[in-house]
Amino acid sequence: MNITVLGCGRWGTFHAWYANHIGHQVMLWGRPGSAHLRALRDTRKNEYLTLPGEVALTDDLARALSFAEVIVVSIASQQLRSFCAQLRDLGGWSGKRFVLCMKGLETGTGKRLTTVMQEELDGVQTAVWVGPGHVQDFIRGLPNCMVIASADLSLTRDLVDIFSSPLIRFYYGEDLLGTEIGAAAKNVIGLAAGMLDGFGYSSLKGALMARGTRELSRLIEKMGGNKMTVYGLSHLGDYEATLFSPHSNNRRFGEDLIAGRPFAKLAEGVYTVEALMDLSSSYQVELPICATVYEIVRHHKDPKEQLMQLFLRTTKSEQA
Amino acid sequence: MNITVLGCGRWGTFHAWYANHIGHQVMLWGRPGSAHLRALRDTRKNEYLTLPGEVALTDDLARALSFAEVIVVSIASQQLRSFCAQLRDLGGWSGKRFVLCMKGLETGTGKRLTTVMQEELDGVQTAVWVGPGHVQDFIRGLPNCMVIASADLSLTRDLVDIFSSPLIRFYYGEDLLGTEIGAAAKNVIGLAAGMLDGFGYSSLKGALMARGTRELSRLIEKMGGNKMTVYGLSHLGDYEATLFSPHSNNRRFGEDLIAGRPFAKLAEGVYTVEALMDLSSSYQVELPICATVYEIVRHHKDPKEQLMQLFLRTTKSEQA
Repeated sequence: MNITVLGCGRWGTFHAWYANHIGHQVMLWGRPGSAHLRALRDTRKNEYLTLPGEVALTDDLARALSFAEVIVVSIASQQLRSFCAQLRDLGGWSGKRFVLCMKGLETGTGKRLTTVMQEELDGVQTAVWVGPGHVQDFIRGLPNCMVIASADLSLTRDLVDIFSSPLIRFYYGEDLLGTEIGAAAKNVIGLAAGMLDGFGYSSLKGALMARGTRELSRLIEKMGGNKMTVYGLSHLGDYEATLFSPHSNNRRFGEDLIAGRPFAKLAEGVYTVEALMDLSSSYQVELPICATVYEIVRHHKDPKEQLMQLFLRTTKSEQA
Repeated sequence: MNITVLGCGRWGTFHAWYANHIGHQVMLWGRPGSAHLRALRDTRKNEYLTLPGEVALTDDLARALSFAEVIVVSIASQQLRSFCAQLRDLGGWSGKRFVLCMKGLETGTGKRLTTVMQEELDGVQTAVWVGPGHVQDFIRGLPNCMVIASADLSLTRDLVDIFSSPLIRFYYGEDLLGTEIGAAAKNVIGLAAGMLDGFGYSSLKGALMARGTRELSRLIEKMGGNKMTVYGLSHLGDYEATLFSPHSNNRRFGEDLIAGRPFAKLAEGVYTVEALMDLSSSYQVELPICATVYEIVRHHKDPKEQLMQLFLRTTKSEQA
């Protein structure tokens, strides 16, 4: 079938490659003036992959929208609201099924991305596609398991049917709220992991995994989600990629911060942690690890002191 | 205070070093004829550390037992029952507080180590001390968090007071059953992780973490424990050390198995997986990952086929 992919960064381009790889007709959209799009037009390549000639490239959003009934979205999370306004102005979005492949929460509101979609495009059908996997590995043919979640199980099932292949096997996510919060928050745990790596305290990443999942599980439960979701593919299942892989942007950002190395751009977790602080106060749930990351990246508190205090404070019960 | 450590392998010797390091008087016991004990007597060293002169060394079990009220035990899990019989014959164990630092389940019965202790030494006070941390890192001064659990919270609290230091901060484990099953089972997940590494499928370790914890959580709940315990320090918190570290014996065993490299000795997970298969059938809980590891290590089934089938089988709900 026809699939449109909006956004031609690392993941958007991968999604176009993948949809083509499993036999769909694909159109990949980048915003007018996008350097990524220009490079793809010139060479059909980016740093990770070569895009087959049959994948159509465009910077015409109306054309991209009208091309397909299933629209994969992979743009910067913080631009989703203004992007939705653009779709609304264009029209033609109604009846389409959108699949968000980014992981984030809106800063300033702490809102989930599907909430932003609903607010801007009333009645829109939206799902999320999250979970582990490196672009580099998929291109080399290494399979992985991911998750598609939405508020509507029949939408989830349809999308899983459309996107399943031996390269990516999907699980159905039945808790959209928990899936979105967890997928976004894993980038914050990734920042903390990078900081521990930066200090040579990588062995504390075990405690980070146990304690990070726990605080997010509590938040999700308080928000009305399922406390087990964070232990699934969308969050814990993404820890290999986010906390251990040299490919992880967020992990590397944390490591570079400690080493005092310059970084080209802010990692997504830096925005997410701000949104999580809003949720922590709205829902009155303590998030000690997220709060520590926030103090370090936003208020430039001493990282070593903050992290040691976090992990090595007073003895307490594991269930707390 | 006086502390006796029984067993002078890697971890036993570390426990003796640690108890001395935090100010206790320590006696370390090894069985008569132990090569480890002989080397420690000759050089005060093993591969990992140098034992200070004030740590007493002995192969006299009666003397070691009478030396202290708190007895740290670090011997091979499968030898615990016969070792307990030895203690029973010697006498003098009553009123002592035992802390088991091994991770395993009895093969043939699937029993937990504290159950074995109770069966052999009626009324004995026993706790377990488990969780993340590499000997190598502790010796270099890198701190970590661990967990002490027992059926008696006042015993747990006393032991935490006795063993806490800036190098090891403890959480109280309130679910002894879940703590023991999880601590033992992490070695089986470590074997699977090593096999994935061996195939260059390390990126599936994310899915392994999400699905491995899930099946064990179900088993523990069915056995009467807390389904969240496996997500604490005793299991998930030990994944950094067990699934990602080059130091991990179990991970390396799995990797060597795939590479066809010879291994000097069986990793503990090879025994544990057998015990888990007994529990799986007694409690009627499917353990797909453990069963796969079992088929590979015990029945020499084709590892690649088995692992791919495990991770890439039919789509299903995450909660399943």
